[in-house]
Amino acid sequence: MNGLLTDLYELTMAAGYFEAGKTTERATFELAIRRLPPRRNFLLAAGLPQVVDYLLNLSFSSEEVAYLRGLPQFSNASAAFFDYLCHFRFTGDLFAVAEGTPLFAGEPFLTLRAPIIEAQIPETYLLSAVTFPTLVAGKAARCVAAAGGRPVIEFGTRRAHTAEAGVLAARAAYLGGCAGTSNSLAGFRYGIPVKGTAAHSWVMSFSNETESFRQLQRVFGDNTTQLIDTYDTVEGARRVAQLGRPIQGVRIDSGDSLALSRQVRAVLDAAGLPDTEIMVTGDLDEYRIRDLVAAGAPVDSFGVGTQLATSGDAPYLNATYKMVELNIGGINRFTTKLSEDKISLPGSKQVFRDSERDVLARSGECGRGEALLRPVLLGGRLIEPLPTLEDARCRAAESLARLPQPLRELEVAEPWPMVQSPELRALIDRTRRNLTP
Amino acid sequence: MNGLLTDLYELTMAAGYFEAGKTTERATFELAIRRLPPRRNFLLAAGLPQVVDYLLNLSFSSEEVAYLRGLPQFSNASAAFFDYLCHFRFTGDLFAVAEGTPLFAGEPFLTLRAPIIEAQIPETYLLSAVTFPTLVAGKAARCVAAAGGRPVIEFGTRRAHTAEAGVLAARAAYLGGCAGTSNSLAGFRYGIPVKGTAAHSWVMSFSNETESFRQLQRVFGDNTTQLIDTYDTVEGARRVAQLGRPIQGVRIDSGDSLALSRQVRAVLDAAGLPDTEIMVTGDLDEYRIRDLVAAGAPVDSFGVGTQLATSGDAPYLNATYKMVELNIGGINRFTTKLSEDKISLPGSKQVFRDSERDVLARSGECGRGEALLRPVLLGGRLIEPLPTLEDARCRAAESLARLPQPLRELEVAEPWPMVQSPELRALIDRTRRNLTP
Repeated sequence: MNGLLTDLYELTMAAGYFEAGKTTERATFELAIRRLPPRRNFLLAAGLPQVVDYLLNLSFSSEEVAYLRGLPQFSNASAAFFDYLCHFRFTGDLFAVAEGTPLFAGEPFLTLRAPIIEAQIPETYLLSAVTFPTLVAGKAARCVAAAGGRPVIEFGTRRAHTAEAGVLAARAAYLGGCAGTSNSLAGFRYGIPVKGTAAHSWVMSFSNETESFRQLQRVFGDNTTQLIDTYDTVEGARRVAQLGRPIQGVRIDSGDSLALSRQVRAVLDAAGLPDTEIMVTGDLDEYRIRDLVAAGAPVDSFGVGTQLATSGDAPYLNATYKMVELNIGGINRFTTKLSEDKISLPGSKQVFRDSERDVLARSGECGRGEALLRPVLLGGRLIEPLPTLEDARCRAAESLARLPQPLRELEVAEPWPMVQSPELRALIDRTRRNLTP
Repeated sequence: MNGLLTDLYELTMAAGYFEAGKTTERATFELAIRRLPPRRNFLLAAGLPQVVDYLLNLSFSSEEVAYLRGLPQFSNASAAFFDYLCHFRFTGDLFAVAEGTPLFAGEPFLTLRAPIIEAQIPETYLLSAVTFPTLVAGKAARCVAAAGGRPVIEFGTRRAHTAEAGVLAARAAYLGGCAGTSNSLAGFRYGIPVKGTAAHSWVMSFSNETESFRQLQRVFGDNTTQLIDTYDTVEGARRVAQLGRPIQGVRIDSGDSLALSRQVRAVLDAAGLPDTEIMVTGDLDEYRIRDLVAAGAPVDSFGVGTQLATSGDAPYLNATYKMVELNIGGINRFTTKLSEDKISLPGSKQVFRDSERDVLARSGECGRGEALLRPVLLGGRLIEPLPTLEDARCRAAESLARLPQPLRELEVAEPWPMVQSPELRALIDRTRRNLTP
């Protein structure tokens, strides 16, 4: 009953295709990354389970159909169309790049092949379902790279665009290499390690800071991480040190984290607490993490919130969902869009990746290296269980490790090489030449 | 069963408060806007229905409680705590600024007063539920102002951080003054006018552009808006003109929209179609709309997608949720946070707004003008139905019309004046003086 979770024009187009007698035409649509965000060298494919779940459940309730029937846009649509919607199911094929795969500009991420109406309606949902986690996963990988081995925890649900988006951000961040999340539901639903320390309100709820520390440790034992910046960070560290018990960690959430982490480390070391770890949170991103690491800040782990859960540097992705092929009565027609700055390439495609480059080819070509687009749904059915989140996380780590080092750095590097196969080039030329709009 | 939709530390803090015997302490937490985004002069309060819905339904399923019980963080928590969670309900009070009210830096948006655990757990959800729509509603108001009376339609679900976030973005955009949305579910659920034109895939699915135009008009009649930029925009306009029938509109989605809108207007006028409207979409924001309007572009309506549904210029908001008061055994203690750059002000507050300024006062004071924070839930129950979305939209339009003109412009203006009442200042001084952390 998620049929209305799309742009109205997908549904008016559906009515149009239906009334124009196009229900048997099979279309191939491609969801592709048009451009990388300005400061990114790669993205990490994510969001496939949400896509599959959507397609497997795509349907219209009678209330939804009644709503559409009452809209002026559908005043010319036939009763047969609404009946069609009542029985609507996705019966097509989905090909997709596996979660955790690095993606670059110009590359397809998903291919849908289905009767044209079934391929049209999912456009809006599919774009929103994959672009957001793909951005977050790539961002997480950058933060993790910057941290040079220190764990990075995703802490951003409170800034996410709805708390549910926070759950998916947590999943994507873990896929991209984060060690855990603060989001409890992400832990419950996906088995992601969940982390949490203490809140300022805890500290403030006691008559003095030392008492709040003592009580927290009484409840949580030696696994406690104390939040020490509510009033004065260094003073807070001294109060922790005076508790006279080993303690797992302290968290600094404000101020000059380089200077404070050094002062706090000194206080803890002087008190014989060399194993008490320092976590830094508060307005972090990959660049601030890199700077702290480069300066030798004695920080043991990082909590990144806002920037991860909103993909703060790049809160949206230039991705497209375009028809590339249409089969009418057994005859294939290749389709292309020539709009200024928004050209799309005709034909169903495949990406072959080897250790040196990607080749963008026609689907069905036999290329060198790994074929990235693999069948996921055939005839509307899942052909095998999707890889687990842990699988995807491993795939991300292993794939990133194989990329040239400059691409894994934070600065913009030479793009990963991508060439078009001769067959694809020929198809593009032929399609443009034959196009008589 | 949304209890886990929060950060783990809210739940570890809950366990801590429980085990520390604090279940009867009543806390007051304040959700406040710390700073406005760099280019914004105001925000528009939005998201209150989601907050109310969350608080009215906040609970833990037995599976959720079992999950928590298995986490190492809760190894010291008592069986009584988990039993408490199983029966958890929000029984507190919620005070809130009405949706559609302009908000400025330093102002409270919500106040929660409840037993400390009940006030702590909602932090994460509440922040994510109000900051995102509040940003979008403010952004929409800017776009609408820039459009100078031409309708602005929200088109951005495909770029939203999940399609569900797109529904809420559509709602917020409508609240902020947009004339409608492309999101069908937002129309179904909230009664927002839904709009849609045609897709590039429609055009490409026919053997030539003219045939696609003719077929669209056959299905949708004279209400059709044709998408004319698939191959060549001006050529597309000529083909529309040659159809020989009146047509509601054309849409331009790429290229130089100023030059193209003029050329298209000329083609339509020459063909005797002066009433055919021109809609422009594609990478618009308030600045591009302003520039088009200032240049006298013959554009009749604007569709704004990405920038609205992600609040692209400001994808996150610096807002806080801090304990300001704690009542222990009938005695009030005022709490404050002194963290560098992240200070919070003690005491439950009220904002009085008149035509000249806001006064930030202590709650219970009798001030001049409108008291913005009004009771919404008392004892965990909704005291009256929330204002409708249409009410909120009217409130936004009327409130914005009363603001000084520079604040409604796109450039950064002198902030709306806000002063602290003498009573509040005295409380701040007294609290800081008496603070012995």
